[in-house]
Amino acid sequence: MAHTAEIITIGDEILYGQTLDTNSHWLSGALDGINIKVIQKSTIGDQEEQITHALREAEKRADIILITGGLGPTNDDLTKPTLAKYFDVQLRLNEEALQEIYDLFALVGRVPTSMNEKQAELPTNAEKIKNTVGTAPGMWFQERGKVFISMPGVPREMKEMMQRTILPRLSEQFATGAIVHRMIRTVGIPESKLAEKIAAWEAALPTPIRLAYLPSLGQVKLRMTATGEDASLLEKLLDESTEALLPLVGDYYYGTGTTELEELVGIILKEADATVATAESCTGGMVAGTLVSIPGSSDYFVGGVVAYDNRIKMQVLGVSKQTLEAHGAVSGPVVQEMAMGVRKKFQTSVGIATSGVAGPAGGSEDKPVGTVWIGYSDERKTTAEKMVFTKDRALNIRLSTLAALNLLRLNFQR
Amino acid sequence: MAHTAEIITIGDEILYGQTLDTNSHWLSGALDGINIKVIQKSTIGDQEEQITHALREAEKRADIILITGGLGPTNDDLTKPTLAKYFDVQLRLNEEALQEIYDLFALVGRVPTSMNEKQAELPTNAEKIKNTVGTAPGMWFQERGKVFISMPGVPREMKEMMQRTILPRLSEQFATGAIVHRMIRTVGIPESKLAEKIAAWEAALPTPIRLAYLPSLGQVKLRMTATGEDASLLEKLLDESTEALLPLVGDYYYGTGTTELEELVGIILKEADATVATAESCTGGMVAGTLVSIPGSSDYFVGGVVAYDNRIKMQVLGVSKQTLEAHGAVSGPVVQEMAMGVRKKFQTSVGIATSGVAGPAGGSEDKPVGTVWIGYSDERKTTAEKMVFTKDRALNIRLSTLAALNLLRLNFQR
Repeated sequence: MAHTAEIITIGDEILYGQTLDTNSHWLSGALDGINIKVIQKSTIGDQEEQITHALREAEKRADIILITGGLGPTNDDLTKPTLAKYFDVQLRLNEEALQEIYDLFALVGRVPTSMNEKQAELPTNAEKIKNTVGTAPGMWFQERGKVFISMPGVPREMKEMMQRTILPRLSEQFATGAIVHRMIRTVGIPESKLAEKIAAWEAALPTPIRLAYLPSLGQVKLRMTATGEDASLLEKLLDESTEALLPLVGDYYYGTGTTELEELVGIILKEADATVATAESCTGGMVAGTLVSIPGSSDYFVGGVVAYDNRIKMQVLGVSKQTLEAHGAVSGPVVQEMAMGVRKKFQTSVGIATSGVAGPAGGSEDKPVGTVWIGYSDERKTTAEKMVFTKDRALNIRLSTLAALNLLRLNFQR
Repeated sequence: MAHTAEIITIGDEILYGQTLDTNSHWLSGALDGINIKVIQKSTIGDQEEQITHALREAEKRADIILITGGLGPTNDDLTKPTLAKYFDVQLRLNEEALQEIYDLFALVGRVPTSMNEKQAELPTNAEKIKNTVGTAPGMWFQERGKVFISMPGVPREMKEMMQRTILPRLSEQFATGAIVHRMIRTVGIPESKLAEKIAAWEAALPTPIRLAYLPSLGQVKLRMTATGEDASLLEKLLDESTEALLPLVGDYYYGTGTTELEELVGIILKEADATVATAESCTGGMVAGTLVSIPGSSDYFVGGVVAYDNRIKMQVLGVSKQTLEAHGAVSGPVVQEMAMGVRKKFQTSVGIATSGVAGPAGGSEDKPVGTVWIGYSDERKTTAEKMVFTKDRALNIRLSTLAALNLLRLNFQR
């Protein structure tokens, strides 16, 4: 039986729609990863009565209560005094916390105000959780057989605290045997189609393995979680299940673990000692931008041309007027000439190109909105693939970008 | 006194961290816009007991209870039977809802399954809310002096229902006099600095006006909300306050309303009958990509060069080797030559360029990570501006992109 947790998010700015709460989403995933089941999330305002009521309700239901927010230096941050009252204890200055605040300010050559110093006051029953990136310490309470954890609302501070201190400790304290994960990453296949392909495999999964579909834009990740007593046995089960799965997924599979597609493309290019240049029409620079988002991309990415206007396709990339007139800008021959053109002009091993009807205007019966051609060129071959995406401009641009990166990958991995 | 609302989100996938809940954030903002105050949000699992408990708690506190999710066609969607039990009524087939489901399927040439048909069953005390984009109707309940509203969890369906039916009706039923909004958009100034600049103005705001700071990446929106009896009086107050505010904000102000910076840039270029080309190093195509994100951008955006490697800066954009050697790639002279180079090569009225140290590597004492130069060139002048951003690569790229668009704007508006 998994232990249960509730997440209480404190902050008027979230209630009024000024801030999107991403903390509780991140926390849910992190807790799921150590087999702790979140049973409720609540968002409430910075008010003592509301906080107390939420704590009381959560304590009735869950083993672990995680609280974010309300630890700022100003008077409208009420989490700490309310927790002290809730546990019927006093607030007391924590010398270690005070020192840590001074150290943090010293780093940027400043001195804390009395307001910041007040952040070092903690309820006497709290264990301090060190905050290495901010001034509000976290707190760990062990009361009436339950664990209460209070963290700052700043996502960076909360995550750092969770990863360094709280998750390891929760996982130790609430360990229910062994938990092993395996992430299988796919690209280019919709969730429903993937589910169909692997239905028989999924139905035959051994009992200790749970499967979750984690779809994001144009990608689906399959997360297998195995729980039991013997970690090495679970690893073996996961190995066997993965081995049976991969042939079913085929080319759509691109990796396990945390490496994103754009990182993988970089790794592949570096390994092959290859360089790439981009020639983009409908994606307008987003393929180049996605490659550049990876630190160290200058090792393999040289540059690109955004050839939005057909004039640029001809003048800068050397696409022939005849090809444009015969096939139109959104066509296999044109993206092939674009990919080859940019490869030659930029003297790279590989060229990749996009041209499509992103929408909302510009569609025709032949080439409706969502029609996209991706071109690829290296020294040995030049090819093109056609995709048909959606009616939504932003979505089409993002899906085309992903498809271009994927075609690059496939040409090295096939 | 504003009326109060609570939002209940139903769905295991949100509790387990598989889906990020953006619905309740959107709902909060929409309700705030009609002066309804959200006092709590709860996320719970697809379980009758949990749903009933959450309803009971919310009913104690709020005037309006909004529920999203759990209206799918499968058996684990329990919202409808639970609501029927909660109000002690039966489920009954709603002929109009059934017809709407048939109509929707006919549009895509399909016939509903018996599971879909079941979606037309509603609690007898529910008023149907039409779903024009999906098969699950919404429901409006008026019980014990409170309003309960149940909507599908699919964001597109929920939003459509809110905008077409629910918001107008809530605003009619719970109108507390007049509410008028004014949004003042700024770019390039941090929230704290803006707050300092306008502190005296803010302190002197007339009572009917509330001010909210809505910060997003590199931008801060100021939302004034005026509430009272007489809408025209409120409009006048907002006009006066805006008039007093704008000189304080100066050049950082770029517009009111909902027009984003990249849209505004497009409008400005079109009005001036001007065209633009981009030359990007550190932003790697994101300036072009942001321009292309706007439908119809082909009217003024011609294309660009991503000159990530210095070789491309020289060979494609014509930056001189001497300038690169004398000043380095991250320098005013280089971005000026890039901007002018792309403008001439692409034959546009304007060229805009970026070069910076995005990080994490590549920083020096002179040019630490976060140092970015933006270049601008038109027929009359060529200029450059230096910015110093953060230590974070992704953030630096996004802030540089925004700064480039902003420099473009300023050169037309100053």
